[in-house]
Amino acid sequence: MKDKEILNSNEDYAIKENISPAVIKRLPRYFRYLRILMREGKTRISSAELSKRMNITASQIRQDLNCFGGFGQQGYGYNVSYLYARICELLGVGAGLQAVIIGAGNLGRALAKNEMFEKRGVDVVAIFDNNPELVGQKVNEIPIIHIDEFERYAATHTIDMAVLTLPKEYALEMAQRIADTDISGIWNFTSQELDSVEGDIIVENVHLGDSLMTLNYLIANKDK
Amino acid sequence: MKDKEILNSNEDYAIKENISPAVIKRLPRYFRYLRILMREGKTRISSAELSKRMNITASQIRQDLNCFGGFGQQGYGYNVSYLYARICELLGVGAGLQAVIIGAGNLGRALAKNEMFEKRGVDVVAIFDNNPELVGQKVNEIPIIHIDEFERYAATHTIDMAVLTLPKEYALEMAQRIADTDISGIWNFTSQELDSVEGDIIVENVHLGDSLMTLNYLIANKDK
Repeated sequence: MKDKEILNSNEDYAIKENISPAVIKRLPRYFRYLRILMREGKTRISSAELSKRMNITASQIRQDLNCFGGFGQQGYGYNVSYLYARICELLGVGAGLQAVIIGAGNLGRALAKNEMFEKRGVDVVAIFDNNPELVGQKVNEIPIIHIDEFERYAATHTIDMAVLTLPKEYALEMAQRIADTDISGIWNFTSQELDSVEGDIIVENVHLGDSLMTLNYLIANKDK
Repeated sequence: MKDKEILNSNEDYAIKENISPAVIKRLPRYFRYLRILMREGKTRISSAELSKRMNITASQIRQDLNCFGGFGQQGYGYNVSYLYARICELLGVGAGLQAVIIGAGNLGRALAKNEMFEKRGVDVVAIFDNNPELVGQKVNEIPIIHIDEFERYAATHTIDMAVLTLPKEYALEMAQRIADTDISGIWNFTSQELDSVEGDIIVENVHLGDSLMTLNYLIANKDK
């Protein structure tokens, strides 16, 4: 539990409130690369080496890392585990967030089996579906519960996020039901825009279509 | 087939080669919003209204759309179907790209059933898996073929992209097999980095973990 100790230390972190949205967007990438470095057993890395690996300019890296107190030393580089712990703390990896998945279809099941949640400190505690044949089954030890039980479950458990994987036509109504509970965020895998949902809810959209279009663009314009 | 006609027109498009990567990254969003406008039957839109909908500044929109020849008229706005056709052409929506899915697990099946491909003009023609029990089955009318047949299939069909949904530990070897064919791009759903793959292959990574971490961050830092 070495990371946990670092995360729980009482040191103050520099300028946390002033981090720009652009830097925040890059944080998960830093997290990912620093994880790899940790796994490789690297203790220090220079901005030049990190730059090469991440395909970000070294000066951008220095600027970003300074934002969250990762001050490198000239000719000595950054302390990998220190930086990793800082980024984990910023990203809430140590916060022990709990998630439910809405929709036990192929995508919901694929996500329930995905080690991504565990790796990022998110605990998936339940899957909801309206299919009575699925209710009572388990996916990766996670129980499938009838969607009618959702409000009762949310009221009696501390759930931080709901992962929305149901068919698009039900997404808006379900998102409103989620927003009406104490759940803080929706991870939206449906292509339905949720702007019209009322209440204090954070929405993170997974726009798979946008990613597909980017690939389309690159392929269609290859060799031009 | 109205769109098709517009796409196939012989007009030249302004400054196509000079579009910056930042604009290209925003293209799929424009595509998405213009699709909605088309569906709503809107024929014209002002940069101010598009700005409000897309949460991008009006001046940014004007700048972006000028890049691909979408010159709006003062007090009159943009022609929605013209812009949509331009963006479709740029993104290769009319190019009729063909895709195969590698991995018939939950994620591969979920993607095979997803209307996203069809909506964006990509035709999924086959799914490959190493499980003999799955081979011969169909998902959404798409046949599951044994992975041993992959090279032969790729050599006898025009495949533009491979969607990688197999377990991470097989991703690198499979990506190299793909790069060794005439396939142009990989849509990578595994968390395996494919930088070490040799050959002329475009890789678009779906970093679901990054999206999860962004949501984590927003939840962990809510009300701070």
